[in-house]
Amino acid sequence: MTKPTDSRRQFLQKVALGGAFAGTFSLPVWAADKSNLAYDLPKWMTKPGKGFSNYGQPSPHEKEVIRWISANPDAQGNGVSWTPLHDLQGTITPNGLHYERHHNGVPQIDPTQHLLLIDGLVDKPLSFDVASLLRYPMISRTCFIECGGNSNSGWRSNPIQSKAGYAHGLVSNAEWTGIPLKLLLQEVGIKAEAKWVIAEAADAAALNISIPLEKLLDDAILALYQNGERLRPENGYPMRLVLPGWEGILNVKWLRQLRLTNEPAMTRDETSQYTELMPDGTARQFTFIMEAKSLITSPSLGMMLPDNPGTYQISGLAWSGRGKIARVEISADGGETWADAELHSPILDRAFTRFSLPWHWQGDYSVLQSRATDETGYVQPTRDALVQQRGQHGFFHYNAIVSWEITEQGDINHVYGI
Amino acid sequence: MTKPTDSRRQFLQKVALGGAFAGTFSLPVWAADKSNLAYDLPKWMTKPGKGFSNYGQPSPHEKEVIRWISANPDAQGNGVSWTPLHDLQGTITPNGLHYERHHNGVPQIDPTQHLLLIDGLVDKPLSFDVASLLRYPMISRTCFIECGGNSNSGWRSNPIQSKAGYAHGLVSNAEWTGIPLKLLLQEVGIKAEAKWVIAEAADAAALNISIPLEKLLDDAILALYQNGERLRPENGYPMRLVLPGWEGILNVKWLRQLRLTNEPAMTRDETSQYTELMPDGTARQFTFIMEAKSLITSPSLGMMLPDNPGTYQISGLAWSGRGKIARVEISADGGETWADAELHSPILDRAFTRFSLPWHWQGDYSVLQSRATDETGYVQPTRDALVQQRGQHGFFHYNAIVSWEITEQGDINHVYGI
Repeated sequence: MTKPTDSRRQFLQKVALGGAFAGTFSLPVWAADKSNLAYDLPKWMTKPGKGFSNYGQPSPHEKEVIRWISANPDAQGNGVSWTPLHDLQGTITPNGLHYERHHNGVPQIDPTQHLLLIDGLVDKPLSFDVASLLRYPMISRTCFIECGGNSNSGWRSNPIQSKAGYAHGLVSNAEWTGIPLKLLLQEVGIKAEAKWVIAEAADAAALNISIPLEKLLDDAILALYQNGERLRPENGYPMRLVLPGWEGILNVKWLRQLRLTNEPAMTRDETSQYTELMPDGTARQFTFIMEAKSLITSPSLGMMLPDNPGTYQISGLAWSGRGKIARVEISADGGETWADAELHSPILDRAFTRFSLPWHWQGDYSVLQSRATDETGYVQPTRDALVQQRGQHGFFHYNAIVSWEITEQGDINHVYGI
Repeated sequence: MTKPTDSRRQFLQKVALGGAFAGTFSLPVWAADKSNLAYDLPKWMTKPGKGFSNYGQPSPHEKEVIRWISANPDAQGNGVSWTPLHDLQGTITPNGLHYERHHNGVPQIDPTQHLLLIDGLVDKPLSFDVASLLRYPMISRTCFIECGGNSNSGWRSNPIQSKAGYAHGLVSNAEWTGIPLKLLLQEVGIKAEAKWVIAEAADAAALNISIPLEKLLDDAILALYQNGERLRPENGYPMRLVLPGWEGILNVKWLRQLRLTNEPAMTRDETSQYTELMPDGTARQFTFIMEAKSLITSPSLGMMLPDNPGTYQISGLAWSGRGKIARVEISADGGETWADAELHSPILDRAFTRFSLPWHWQGDYSVLQSRATDETGYVQPTRDALVQQRGQHGFFHYNAIVSWEITEQGDINHVYGI
C-alpha cells in the first residue's frame, strides 16, 4: 500500500457515502452532434472500394491494437508478448492477438515432418504424424490459457503504470479443437505404475515439463485448431497441449513427445522457474491451477473519463481455472462497498466471462476494483491477503484484485488498493 | 437427380444392408510408423526460432487455407469470397476467413469521420460518432451470418464440383459485440406509425434495404467488435448490423443511416435481387430467416478416403435461423437409413453447431448426407422437395441436403441425391 495523496485522504473520508451503483439512473444520450445531422456523403461513397482478399487483416486505423512485446534484448526469442485486453471486447481473443511466451523463439515447423512420440511406461510406444492425427475424433473447448507469470508486476513494491492488457494480458481465450488426449494414451496402453507424463516441445529450448497423468486422462486436448483454423506458429503449430484451467507452460506448444513416468522429471522449467520461495522457506511447486481472477478493462489505465460528472460502462473479464465464474463484484470506493456486476452469457467452464455494470461517476476521487468468485466459492484475494500468504518473493500466480485510481481530473492510474 | 451410373445401380441394390453406423467398432490405431520411433531431433530444434510479432499470421504451410474469391471481372469490388469450411474445425470462423459479399468494394472508412444517423419517424433524429457509441452498454452474441445466395449453385441442373466451403461457405460464425439496437432507437424516440427501418451502408453501392422495426427492437446488435477485436474492414468497419438468424444482406455493413418509415422502401436489393419468382408467378420477397441447414465438411469433395475399407470421422456444421439445432442425422446410403450424429456443446441459438459420427466405410459406393432439424421441428429438405416447392428459377435461400458420393476408389463427388 503506497502512501495516500491528498486526494486519497479526502476519498477515505467519503467512501461511506457510496451510492454510485445503488440507485437506477438513465443512460444519457451520447449522440455526437444533436443539431448538425450527418446527411453529407462521405468521400468513400464516391468511388468503388477495395476488392476482395484471400485472408483479411485489421483496419489500418486499428494499427495500435497489438501485442506488446517484451523480449530479452540478448535473445530475441525469449520473453513474452501481451494481449491488449484493454482494446478488446467480448470474450474471444482473435488469433493474431493471442499472448505469446517463448523460451527460444517460434520454431518454423514443416507439418509433414513433425511427429509426436508417446513412450515410457506404455505397452507399445508409438509415433503419430499430423495426417494420422487429423483422422481422429475431435472435440472443441473454449477456454483461457494464462501464463503462470501473468500480472507478476503485482509482486513489485510499487504499482506498475502499464495498460490493463500490458500488465495482465498474458492470458487469452480461444476455441481449441483437437483430440481428447486419453484416446491417444489408450492406444499406447498405460502401464499401472505410470503417474506422470513428461511433455517436450520441438522448439530450440527443448522445453519440457512434468504433468500428472490424471489430468491428461481427464480433460486434456491435443489441439490442432485455434478459433476454427489450424494453430498459429506462435501457438504451437502444428499441435499443442491444452489443459483447461492449468498454468500456461503446461499447455506445451509444438508438442513432440509425451513420456510416461512414475515421477516428475524436475526439469528446469518446474524448478528454476514456475516455482516460488514461500515465507517459511519451502518451495511452492506444481501449482497447476490458475485461481480465479478478474480485471476491469474499461475504464482502465491510459483512458480518460471525458464527462465530469458522467455515466460510464464498467466492463471487464473474469476467469477461473477451477470452473465457472459465479459472481463478479465491483467497487468504486476501493473495496468499502460492492455491487454485483452483470455476467454475460454463455458462462463457460474455465473460460473468459465478460462482466459489466453502469457506474455514475460524481467527479470525485475513486478507486475501481473487481472481485471474482468462482463456482467452488473461491474469492479473488486482495493484494494484502495474497502477500500475507505468499510473501514478498513471489513471481508467479499473482491473482489479486486490481485497483484503478480515478483522479478528479478523470485520469486513471494503477494503485495498490487505497 | 442425375442418371445413375453402374456404381449407383449396384448401390441402390445394397442400401438395404445398412449397418455402417449400426454396431460399435473400435477406432483403429492411426500411428504413422509403429516400428521406427521419432527420436531424431528435427532441424528446427537446433537453432533459435523466430521472434515475437505484434500481430500474428497463419503458418506459411497453411497458405492454401484461404477465402476463394469470385468477383465480377468488370467490377472487382462486386462479388463474393467463400469461407473454406472444408479446412476448418470447431465453430468459430477466424476473422481473416469470414466470408465476404460486397456490391461495390470495401470502403476505407476513417472511424473518426464516420457518423450513424437515425432519422425518419422518430421524435428526435440523432447522429452518433464512433467515440460516443463505444461508451454504450454492449452485449456479445455468437451467431452465424449467411448470405441469401449461399449454396445457390444447388439450383443449377447439374451438381457443381466445388469444395464444400467454396459451394456452401457464404456463411460464417463469429462472436459479435456491440450495442443492443433498441437502446439507440429508444433514444431517438419511435413514433407510433413506424413499422420499417431503411438501413443504408457507407459504401460506394450505397446499399440500402428495408428491415421490420420489430426485429431491430428484438435482438439486433449494432456490432463494433468481431471475435474480440474491432470489425474487419470487409465486415463493416467501423460498425454493422447483426440480425441473428436473418439473411446476410440485412446485416448491413458500414452502417451510416437508419431511417424509420411506415413501409418498406422497395430498394434495388430487395426487388431486383434477394427476391425470387415462384412457380405460381408470384414473387418470394422479404424471406428474412435463413432456414435450418447442415453440411458435411469432412469427408467432402477434394479429399480422398485413403484406407479401403476404413474408419472415418464424419464431421460437419449445422445451423438454423430459427433457434438451436436439435438433431443432425447422417446417412451413408443416400438417405435410405439414418443415424444420429453427436452434437458438440455448447449448442447456441442461431450459431454453428459442430456434429460428428464415426463411420465404417466398407469400400463400396456410398452417398453421405446430413440432415438438420432445429428446435422448432423444421427439418432440412431434400433437393427434390425444395425444387418441388420453389420451382426451377430459384437463386436464393437454398438449404437442401448436400450429398457427397464416395466412389469405390475413395474419390468424392457432389451429386444430387441418388
